[in-house]
Parts: sequence; structure tokens; C-alpha cells
Amino acid sequence: MQDPKSYRIDELAARFGLAARGDASGLVSGVAPLARAEPGQLAFLANSRYVPDLAGTRAGVVVLRAEHADASPSPVLIAPDPYLAYARIAALFDHEPATAPGVHPTAVVAANAHVDAGASVGPGCVIESGARIEAGAVLGPNCVIGTDCTVGSQSRLGANVTLVTRVTLGKRVLIHAGAVLGADGFGIARDGNHWFKVPQLGGVRIGDDCEIGANTTIDRGALEDTVLEADVRLDNQIQIAHNVRIGAHTAMAGCAAVAGSASIGRDCLIGGGAGVLGHLEIADGVTITAMSLVTHSIRAPGTYSSGAPIEENRAWRRNAARMRQLDAMARRIADLEKRLEALTKEHR
Amino acid sequence: MQDPKSYRIDELAARFGLAARGDASGLVSGVAPLARAEPGQLAFLANSRYVPDLAGTRAGVVVLRAEHADASPSPVLIAPDPYLAYARIAALFDHEPATAPGVHPTAVVAANAHVDAGASVGPGCVIESGARIEAGAVLGPNCVIGTDCTVGSQSRLGANVTLVTRVTLGKRVLIHAGAVLGADGFGIARDGNHWFKVPQLGGVRIGDDCEIGANTTIDRGALEDTVLEADVRLDNQIQIAHNVRIGAHTAMAGCAAVAGSASIGRDCLIGGGAGVLGHLEIADGVTITAMSLVTHSIRAPGTYSSGAPIEENRAWRRNAARMRQLDAMARRIADLEKRLEALTKEHR
Amino acid sequence: MQDPKSYRIDELAARFGLAARGDASGLVSGVAPLARAEPGQLAFLANSRYVPDLAGTRAGVVVLRAEHADASPSPVLIAPDPYLAYARIAALFDHEPATAPGVHPTAVVAANAHVDAGASVGPGCVIESGARIEAGAVLGPNCVIGTDCTVGSQSRLGANVTLVTRVTLGKRVLIHAGAVLGADGFGIARDGNHWFKVPQLGGVRIGDDCEIGANTTIDRGALEDTVLEADVRLDNQIQIAHNVRIGAHTAMAGCAAVAGSASIGRDCLIGGGAGVLGHLEIADGVTITAMSLVTHSIRAPGTYSSGAPIEENRAWRRNAARMRQLDAMARRIADLEKRLEALTKEHR
Repeated sequence: MQDPKSYRIDELAARFGLAARGDASGLVSGVAPLARAEPGQLAFLANSRYVPDLAGTRAGVVVLRAEHADASPSPVLIAPDPYLAYARIAALFDHEPATAPGVHPTAVVAANAHVDAGASVGPGCVIESGARIEAGAVLGPNCVIGTDCTVGSQSRLGANVTLVTRVTLGKRVLIHAGAVLGADGFGIARDGNHWFKVPQLGGVRIGDDCEIGANTTIDRGALEDTVLEADVRLDNQIQIAHNVRIGAHTAMAGCAAVAGSASIGRDCLIGGGAGVLGHLEIADGVTITAMSLVTHSIRAPGTYSSGAPIEENRAWRRNAARMRQLDAMARRIADLEKRLEALTKEHR
Repeated sequence: MQDPKSYRIDELAARFGLAARGDASGLVSGVAPLARAEPGQLAFLANSRYVPDLAGTRAGVVVLRAEHADASPSPVLIAPDPYLAYARIAALFDHEPATAPGVHPTAVVAANAHVDAGASVGPGCVIESGARIEAGAVLGPNCVIGTDCTVGSQSRLGANVTLVTRVTLGKRVLIHAGAVLGADGFGIARDGNHWFKVPQLGGVRIGDDCEIGANTTIDRGALEDTVLEADVRLDNQIQIAHNVRIGAHTAMAGCAAVAGSASIGRDCLIGGGAGVLGHLEIADGVTITAMSLVTHSIRAPGTYSSGAPIEENRAWRRNAARMRQLDAMARRIADLEKRLEALTKEHR
Repeated sequence: MQDPKSYRIDELAARFGLAARGDASGLVSGVAPLARAEPGQLAFLANSRYVPDLAGTRAGVVVLRAEHADASPSPVLIAPDPYLAYARIAALFDHEPATAPGVHPTAVVAANAHVDAGASVGPGCVIESGARIEAGAVLGPNCVIGTDCTVGSQSRLGANVTLVTRVTLGKRVLIHAGAVLGADGFGIARDGNHWFKVPQLGGVRIGDDCEIGANTTIDRGALEDTVLEADVRLDNQIQIAHNVRIGAHTAMAGCAAVAGSASIGRDCLIGGGAGVLGHLEIADGVTITAMSLVTHSIRAPGTYSSGAPIEENRAWRRNAARMRQLDAMARRIADLEKRLEALTKEHR
């Protein structure tokens, strides 16, 4: 009997609609990087940076674009998008341990909370008044689901996740450990010489199929909800302030931050550590490169950047000192142009 | 009988010392943004960005400055600071669920810890040796209060908050979920080819009325305490290193970070993602804009910035490449000036 | 009988191989900063910034370099590296409360997990299937140790730490509260108009003697493990993406972030808030200054920086506006040079 975790290359080709070349009768039982894959493993080539690894690969099969097929010493599976095809195949080897439904005896569930019989609530979880956990949802250990929060069906929360209050998750939402959704937005009003805390009366709404990274924070709205539309993908340690809206399919890399009431379009890519100031709009299809700061609305799709390039420190010091003289330099250039013009005229 | 959550406009005017204009007999039972408020709701206009929403508002009443009163189609409440007035009114509609005093049976409290009978300790909390929880304090689920920590009276901790060791909170301190106070400062000394860990013998002292955001970290001091004076307001994911001092009423936006032994004055505003290097001082009343890096002491109040502006990526690439030539450009300008001067003299 | 926590100066000199000058018969029972130390306390002078504090110190003894000995009003201990010598002495005064071995009755341990009899598992911890906790390891309250994770001997975890899956810690690893290791790497592949989640099949391997700060996140690898070699020191709120490798003895300050598949050498220093893009390499012995962004591989040791200097906001606005004109300015300079050259030739 064939090992249920092994797949023939031609079987994979048929299953995922890929063209096979070379001997397609081999078996693969796992995946590995091109440079280190063994004969029983599948590798892929998507990033041109790794083309040099192809010639020496020992992989049982390589998923790649047609243009690289001839250069492969191993059998290949040809895909227009090898990374996507690889991802689909790799999912065959990803064995999430099954979680039995039910509420762990150490969990604390408020009398008027609702936990579906098909949901799984881990040890140490606390589910507060008015919360709802829908069918197929899985809560990792020590999660806290606050007042009037809803965890949609098939959603999965890692350990130590907190939904504070008025947070609604759609279906199939994935939240990694340590994330905090629905904490108070940062609203303070100056009152004489001290601060008055502005009530945060809104909630958080997370669309279907969103993924939210470890230790990411999404505050609830001041007046209305903070909203992530469907299929938004947030990496770790991202900060989303109150009243922010993020359009469907937008992805943000680690440590990005969005200030209050900013509105980001659909299909945007926000680079790691990038910042977006408050009360502005970013159009659909905008890419912001890593550690850039968006200070005004962006109305057209495209790629936008800020920042200064990295240099050896001594060169950087010399150049950075000149950044403080830039306006003066520009004026000196204009002055030179004027004087040279005058002199040239005089001379002729 | 009037709904206890509805308020007449003239009642609000009297209660908060505001002048009403228009029909002040209407009732409001909630708050909403100017553009979307319904007749039974109160809205406000503070940020001039939202002036265009005023003409079409359906709000039952709008809190605004006198200069905008005539332009409002709805009755108005006039306030010198509409945001503050709004915040005070909105607090009427903010119903934090009451927390009964007492220690949840799943909490674990060390024999020599002290929990006031008027404090509330949530499920799964762990209170270690020598800790004190004072009257009216509320600990959310799964908080850990370490050795010799004190939670002052009326302070409130969200879920999963950790006070590690020697952390003292004043009165009415608010700490959001996932924050960690009192972890070891990052002190390492090079010892041959490896690192020696420097003991972190200080603590953390948080003044009355401070607010600390979700997943924010405040390390304890190496020798002395890390100190936040009264009414300091920290947003989410802020990092405060060991021995830092922050003056009263200073507010910091999300993801800002302060390195060891820096001292920040009173009434400062530190923008989101801004950084402050260690062993320096910032005067009272300083504003640092978002994502700026403070590299030396700032002695005078005012607003300070660093960074390069965002641009369409191709333009940015061309300009950024020139940043590496800035010093050379400055020398070329000086050289041009000298040569033009010489030529001019020669010519005359 | 002498207080067991007091030490004679000459005893410290002998114990740590330091030369004493002045009356070495005094006792010290604690440590304090130079400016505030009392007669019974030891202080140190390592950073030249604090030389002005030496003349007025009341410390019982000062650890310093030979060059500063004559200027001290107090007895001194002379050390080539006073910070390291101080750290070794200060460790005498650092009394971590002893932790009794055993599993707290509120902890939940899977039937097929292994907890060594000499390990300590705090209240509320959850240890999942296949996990191993080795001898002398200490887990703070509410930690979650996921499937197939290993906590090496003598390692210590603060409260609320999560090891998600396939995380292996070496010996004597120290992890501060709220850190999350082994969450899914951020792998998404575009599939038509939505995202397909790429399986994250690797793990995380942490070498002996590493230290990992509060709320720091280290994702597990996509195909292979994310790796920290021995004695890597990470401060708080650092983000390490999937497949990253960090060489031995490298230290990173708070809020730094490293993108996927980057490889950082040994003995590097990465400043606070610095960013490292993915799929690149940094050589051994590289220093990156605070908030710099590494956008390409760095092949030679040395110090590297990016960013623009901080200025008073109005000056900064004027200069920053010119950054958008830099390429044009450079062309104008070149044009001026050409025209001036031509004019000069003509003139002669």
C-alpha cells in the first residue's frame, strides 16, 4: 500500500492542472528548498534570485515556469505561477493537528455567552458576557473573548489572543498568538493642563478570510467601527488605530502602522515598517515600500517610497549634514544660474 | 418616562456650560460622525478637514466652534474646544460593564500577596509573592502580577497584562491588553567573545492617571526605576527602555520607541513610530513628528522632524541616488561659486 | 556577624581580579548610579558622558578605568572594562526568587508531553502534545508550549510566552513576557483576485544562551527553520520573519525587524527600529545604526546608516521639499559646470 503522504509526480500534475516533463512516475513525500531538496522532495523556482540553484538540485521534481524547464536536471512541473502552484501542493503536507470540539474544563464561559457545540475552546480561555463563538471556530489556550464579541465560523485563534469588546470576526479568520483586537482607540483631548480620555464607542469588524499576525493590535473605533474588509492579510506587530478602514485583499508586512481614520484601498501592498498618517486616503492598488511614511492622500495606483539610502556611516554623515543645507544649496544654484546668465550676456 | 440614556440638548448645554443655538428641545441618545449622524444623535466638528460635511448633516445637534454655527443646518452647541466638549458628552453614552469586587476562583494568589476586598481579580490571573492590589483596582482575565508589584487604587488592567517585578502603578492607571511592564532592561556587556547579562535591579514607577496601550512594553531600570510621571499617555506597541523618564502629560503615539536612560520632558507629543536615542534629554513642550529619529538632546520647546518626503517610486529612486552625492554636490557648488567669482573679476 | 549581602571592597577586588585604590576596607551592600550612590553603595564610570558626576560622588567605591582613578573622591576598583566589571559585581545583588520544581496544579499538560521532574511549570501554563520541558527549565504563568516544541534545560520563560509549533530552545535561553515564537510565517501567494495561504512547514531553532525580549515575535520557517545561533540577544518588540538566520553573538535593539530569508552574520549590532529587507545577507561584524533600512546585501564589516537628520520643523520642511528636486539640482550643477567651462574657454 502506498504511503498516504506520498504523491506521484503525474498525480500532482493532474490534480493541480500542471504540465509534467521528465519521468513523472517518481514519488514525493515532502517539500524543500531547491538547493537542499532530496530526491523524494518537491522544490520550486519562482524568485529569479534562486536560478543558480537549479543546475545542482537533487529534488525529485521542480515546480517552475516553462522558460526554466530545460535547465532542470530533475523532472519538472510547469506552472505559470510556480509559487502559487507550490503552495497548493505544499498544503498536502501541512498536517494541522485536529481539534476536538468542546469547551476545555478550565475555560470560563459567561452564562449569557454562546458557544456553538461544534466550536473548540482551549484551556484557560475566558469568554465574557454576550460573546458568540460560532461553529467550527477554534480558540487556542488562554484566549480572552470580551463582551459582545463574535468569532465567526471556522475562524482560528492562536494562544493568548484578546478580543476586547465589540469585535466581530467573519468566517475563516486566522489570528495569531498575542494579537489584541478591540482595545480602546488612542483618543485624548486636552483639558487645561491634563488629558481627558475620549470614549471609544465603536467596535472592530474583520471580514471573512482575513489573517492577523502575532502581537498585532487593532483598536476599536471612537464612533464607528474600525474595519478590515475580506481577505486582508496583516503580518506581525502591525498597529491599526481607531476608525481605520482597509480594503479587501490588501496585505501589510510586519511592523507597519496606520494612524486613526486613515482609509486604505483594496489590493494595496504596504511594506514592512511603513507608516500611514491619520485622516487620509490611499487609492486601490497602491504599493508603499518598506519604512516609507505616507503623509498625504495618494489618489493614483502605483508604487510610492520615502527615505534615504543606506551608506557606510562616514559617507552618510557627510551627506546627511548636507541635507540640512539643501534649501540653501538650491538657492545657491539658482543664484549661480542667474549670475552666469548675466555674465554670459555681458560677455557676448 | 424618558429613556434614561436620552438627553435634551438644553440639558447638555447646561450640564457642560455650552451655548445652544437652534431648537434645543430635541433629544439625543448617542453620538455619530457628522456625515452619518441621524436626527437622534450628536455630532461634532473639530477638525477643519470635516467642514464640508457640515452642510449636509442630519445630526440632532452639532458641537462646534462659534465660527461654524451659522453654517449648521442642525441645532448647535457652541464650545471653544468642540473635541473636548464632545468627549465629555460622549462619556454619558459609554457604559463600561460593572465589575464585581472579588477574586475569581480560577485566579492564583500567593499567600503573602495582598488583594484589597474592593478589588476585582479576573479569571486566570496570577498574583505573586509580595504583590498588592489596592481598592477598586480591576484586573482583566489572565493578568500576571509579579513579585513586589503594586496596582494602585481604581487602576484597570485589560486581559493578559504582565507586571514582571518591582512595578508600581499609581491610582487610576489604565493598561490595555498584552502590555508588559517591568521586564528586564536590555543590558549586555561584552565579555570576550560572548555577552554577559547586566543585572536589572531597578523597577518601574507609573504615575497616577497614566494610560498604556495594548502590547506596549516598559522595561524596568538597571539601577534606578524607569519612571512615567502622572497623566502620561502611551498608545499601542510603544517600547520604553530601562531608566527612561517621561514627564507629566506627555503623549506618545503608536510604535514610538525610547532608548535607555533618555529623559523626555513634560507636555511633549511624540509622533507615531518616532525614535528617541538613549542618554539624551528632551525639553518640556517638544513635539516630534511621526517616524522622526531624535539623535541628540533637544533643549528648546518646538516641533522637530526628520525624514524624506514620499514620492512616486521612480522619482524617489532618482532623487535618493543623489542623496549619496550630496556632499560632492555641495563642494561642486562651492567650486562653481569660486570659479564664477574669479571669472567675473577677470572679466571686469 | 557580617550581613551576607555586604562585601568588603578588597574582597571584591580579589574576587573579580581588580586593582583597588584608596581605603579598601569599606563595605558595600548595593549598587547605584554615580551621581546618587550613597557611601554603602558601589557605582561605576564607563560612559564618558558621566565623567562630570565623578567629582561629587559619595559612592563607597567606584569601578572605573585607570585614567579616571585620580579624579575620584571615593576608593576605586580599576578595571579595563568597568561596565563588565560592574555587571559581574552587580550580579551579587540580584536575587531572583528561587522557583520550586514541579507542575502547578492549574497547568494543563498533554498526556504525551514530557516535563522533566526538575522543571518548573507555572500556574495556567498549557503544554501540548509532543512538547518537552527539560531539567531546570522554568515556565512563568500562563505560558503556552505548542505541539512538538522543546524548552532546553535551564531555560526561563516569563509570563504569557507562546511557543506555537516546532520551536526548539537550547539551554539557558531567556524569553521575556509576551514573546511569540513559531507563529506562521507571512507567506501568501496571489491566486486570481484573492490570497492563497502558503503552508509554513518549518520550525524555529534558538541556540544556547539566547535572550529574547518582551513581545518579540519570531516566525517559523516556510520550508526550513528560522534560526538564531548561540548567544543572540534580542530586545523587546523585535520582528523576525520566516527563514531568517542570525549569527552567534549578534545583538538587536528594540523594534528592529528582519524580513523573510535574510541572513545576518555573527557579532553584528542592529540598532533600534532598524529594518532589514528579505533575501539578503549581512556579513559578520556589521553595525547598523538606529532606524536605518538595509535594502541590499552588506559584504564588509563596518557601520552603516540611512536616514535624514532631525531639525526644527520649519527648516526641515524647506529642506525636505528640496529632496524632491535633488536629481534636478544635480543636473543643474552639471549644466552650470559645462556652461562655466565653455564661458571660461571663450573668455581666454
